[in-house]
Amino acid sequence: MKIIKGFQADLNVNYQLNVINLMKHAIRNYSRQEIVSRNLDGTLFRYTYSDAYKRMQRLANSLESIGIKVGDRVGVIVWNTYQHFEIYFGLPGMGAVMVTLNLRLAPQDLAYVINHSGINYIILDEDLIQIVESVVPLCEGLKGFIIITEKDQKEIKSTLKPIYFYEDLLEKASPNYDWPNLDENSAYAACYTTGTTGRPKGVYYSHRNVYLQAVMFAAHFSMSVNDVIFQMVPMYHVLGWSKPLAASYMGAKLIFSGNWNLNDLEELTNIFVKEKVTVSAAVPAVFMAMLEIIRMMKEKPDLTGARLICGGSEPPIALMRGFWDETRAEIIHSYGSTELMAITTLNTFKPWLEKELSEEELWNLKKKQGIIVSGLDIKIVNKNGIELPHDGKSSGEILVKGPWVTESYYNAPQTRESFTETGYFKTGDAGCLDSEGYLKITDRIKDVIKSGGEWISSIDMENSLMSHPSVLEAAVVGISHPKWDERPLALIVLREEYKTTTKEDIREHLSQTFAKWQLPEDILFVDKIPRTSVGKLDKKVLRIEYQDFYTMK
Amino acid sequence: MKIIKGFQADLNVNYQLNVINLMKHAIRNYSRQEIVSRNLDGTLFRYTYSDAYKRMQRLANSLESIGIKVGDRVGVIVWNTYQHFEIYFGLPGMGAVMVTLNLRLAPQDLAYVINHSGINYIILDEDLIQIVESVVPLCEGLKGFIIITEKDQKEIKSTLKPIYFYEDLLEKASPNYDWPNLDENSAYAACYTTGTTGRPKGVYYSHRNVYLQAVMFAAHFSMSVNDVIFQMVPMYHVLGWSKPLAASYMGAKLIFSGNWNLNDLEELTNIFVKEKVTVSAAVPAVFMAMLEIIRMMKEKPDLTGARLICGGSEPPIALMRGFWDETRAEIIHSYGSTELMAITTLNTFKPWLEKELSEEELWNLKKKQGIIVSGLDIKIVNKNGIELPHDGKSSGEILVKGPWVTESYYNAPQTRESFTETGYFKTGDAGCLDSEGYLKITDRIKDVIKSGGEWISSIDMENSLMSHPSVLEAAVVGISHPKWDERPLALIVLREEYKTTTKEDIREHLSQTFAKWQLPEDILFVDKIPRTSVGKLDKKVLRIEYQDFYTMK
Repeated sequence: MKIIKGFQADLNVNYQLNVINLMKHAIRNYSRQEIVSRNLDGTLFRYTYSDAYKRMQRLANSLESIGIKVGDRVGVIVWNTYQHFEIYFGLPGMGAVMVTLNLRLAPQDLAYVINHSGINYIILDEDLIQIVESVVPLCEGLKGFIIITEKDQKEIKSTLKPIYFYEDLLEKASPNYDWPNLDENSAYAACYTTGTTGRPKGVYYSHRNVYLQAVMFAAHFSMSVNDVIFQMVPMYHVLGWSKPLAASYMGAKLIFSGNWNLNDLEELTNIFVKEKVTVSAAVPAVFMAMLEIIRMMKEKPDLTGARLICGGSEPPIALMRGFWDETRAEIIHSYGSTELMAITTLNTFKPWLEKELSEEELWNLKKKQGIIVSGLDIKIVNKNGIELPHDGKSSGEILVKGPWVTESYYNAPQTRESFTETGYFKTGDAGCLDSEGYLKITDRIKDVIKSGGEWISSIDMENSLMSHPSVLEAAVVGISHPKWDERPLALIVLREEYKTTTKEDIREHLSQTFAKWQLPEDILFVDKIPRTSVGKLDKKVLRIEYQDFYTMK
Repeated sequence: MKIIKGFQADLNVNYQLNVINLMKHAIRNYSRQEIVSRNLDGTLFRYTYSDAYKRMQRLANSLESIGIKVGDRVGVIVWNTYQHFEIYFGLPGMGAVMVTLNLRLAPQDLAYVINHSGINYIILDEDLIQIVESVVPLCEGLKGFIIITEKDQKEIKSTLKPIYFYEDLLEKASPNYDWPNLDENSAYAACYTTGTTGRPKGVYYSHRNVYLQAVMFAAHFSMSVNDVIFQMVPMYHVLGWSKPLAASYMGAKLIFSGNWNLNDLEELTNIFVKEKVTVSAAVPAVFMAMLEIIRMMKEKPDLTGARLICGGSEPPIALMRGFWDETRAEIIHSYGSTELMAITTLNTFKPWLEKELSEEELWNLKKKQGIIVSGLDIKIVNKNGIELPHDGKSSGEILVKGPWVTESYYNAPQTRESFTETGYFKTGDAGCLDSEGYLKITDRIKDVIKSGGEWISSIDMENSLMSHPSVLEAAVVGISHPKWDERPLALIVLREEYKTTTKEDIREHLSQTFAKWQLPEDILFVDKIPRTSVGKLDKKVLRIEYQDFYTMK
């Protein structure tokens, strides 16, 4: 879309929206605000924004001292810790690009990301050494590794080299750093998507993108210095859904969850209650488990005023209602993706709807994805690209445009079809908008399986199955799962001559290209797979036939 | 300051932060939100954002139809009305620059602004025709006048020509307009300062400036669709201190105060209470009068949650305390200027200070100008430009930089000294910052007394003198001194009943708060102190009258 120049107000065009300017504010006004971080042993580390800022400066000096330059891409494979927070500012603040590496990716995909982005250094947690070691043989251009550990350096055994130690570097570096005045369109971070077919695709967020989204987030969540943000969403997952940056903008207290899984949720829930958390985010499965833990508590915590962002998939009414009834915390449904920088819609009410709708209607409304946040443009189009009315019925593909929405993938000309000529990102999701602006996702344009907030491509898995010599036909569908939202189910027609092939054989074959968590929950050998009239796998029929397969077990 | 380019994230550089993108959001999600406007006869006009948006589009079409083009400057001399709100978007949205004209300027100054900015059309309220008629003979380049009136056109008598009528134009125009994708650095509006000596100076705000400040404002006031904004600050005064734009960003309800003066405050206070206003702004004198009206009410209104921004000068503790005690509304002290786009500091508390300070200390803290809003840089420098520590004592000139802070005046090369080489605006105010980031204004730089390389605040000394029971009026000015550069001279009008008070009495009183070297070289008892037309101490006259007082001795 052509940009029209008006009367040029050249009176302020130089100020750059970069994240160091954002952090400087927190330091000037809120240097005493607390930051908490959960250690590996479950204890809590505490320091202040002021302490963090000194270490960010030490980090910037350290990175320069080992040869990292403005524009370099640096891989980061780290849990939700205070060091990760320091990296969020110290690394892009000195001009390098923070490439957040998803530690759940399969080695080939991880290596692809490292090579495609041109990473030269990797910062990693000590307990993730093996993951990095496994991809190094597949990578070119890696010059060094910075390990974060509390252990004695001599205890660390690794084939990686050269190795630097994070704390060691920081200790030797000066706590004063003269930040460069970075152009706001410089890349701040890169996240790679894994949702659809083919190779991961790189989304490069600029400082401006990140800055603008942080301010939007602070405004939409009425964030202030009185808020306590619990960072549970992995910080390698779309920048932890923006919260560390938005919290810094308003000087809010931050709590980092450390390395955790579902077994740690009782501990995390206790931290939540004890530290009086007011803002957090997670996928429905996590909040569901937390609700169960809260229900077991003798004394129900009062979480009045807490806003819990629930994304990844649709939160059940029982979850939202349960949290409200037990704790007075509000679950706010949100929709997004890597290309959209996570927070795209928020399901919040309007005063007139609260008057007009019954309580039941309001709870049903809360199931929708919500209204799109200020600053973004949205439209629903039919397959010819014609915009559909906002009538709550007309369903089409969801297109989004805005100051932090990707307009192209990095170095991937073959992906141009994911974007319109007027700069909209085609989400691949189908949905409708009602007259009040609430978005409802009705279907997935692409057959993607959403498992615990992560995506698994059914098409990729089918292709892999078909490459096994025993397989004649294969289909993979996402089936509702009580814990993970969806899990893949594979259906296979074996060739006559290979009828003795076992589930284990298939699983082993898939393991070569898929991470363990991506493997199908179950594999069924069938005589026939239903197909549509044009011969395509009829996934609709399969989904209906097997809809209770994982829930009934 | 040199801008450093990092790894270019050219993946989203096209989205423009212009106000039409901001308004489109309000329309998509909050089209039913109400807008209220006080008519000349005191009745209230009501419509919705949706209605307003149709009229904004009609306005844009109208302006084009009479020949206004992208980049043209259009003067606006209109009260706080819904039409003014339509102009805030319709006029800059089509690419012209809205030059807000201060209807209280002297004709020569108004004509200077019109000529300097190159205005070709003026939009005006019918009751302001005489002001415009008086300046037309002094102006070149005026091509037409658009009059807003509810009267019959035949009743309008004017020498202006050609005349168009706002409602007439809108009625004939289409309610659909294809907004240009305006470059964010295009000028949105121009405001001219009148604060200091010499000609008014033009500050041109770009769309980006205005957009970013609106979002910051929404974030800092936790604004939402549930808020009710009462626009009392004149909309020609630094864009009404941002509120119409911030309100649109979050879809908040807006109330426009119409044409009002202090005599209308009872009516405005009633609107305030009846419409359940949650955010407003004014100078202390206005809130003081409103508080008196509230005190007379039989039933005290409950304004819990209301945030009242008080700027222009320091609000007395009695005012802040009075509002809190009577209504539970919070007065928030703010500091700013045209060059800073009004809202620069806000006096809000931090949780740790609320724990550490006594109630009395907190009330005293509220007198300071507050902490600078997120996104702006501030520093305090001595006369050599060296930054001073944030110790709550070291006073120097306040410099500010940020995404909406002016870096130069329009077409005024002689004003370059108002800005530093690194892009800071020199406010001309003296102040200090404490370790928590709270700013305290101590004086205007030109009113500061420079004695032997040290500064003495004339305002502090005047306040101290005024606290002496014998003193009715007091002024302190810096007078040239052969040895110390400048020394203070105090002028005092004594109360009738204390005419026997001596210089020594006064000196002793001052000694309680001032160091010996700061005490005035001389104290004069006078019958009268000259004042300006608006009642301020006329220090210019005093400085001239007493310029040789210390050198001739």
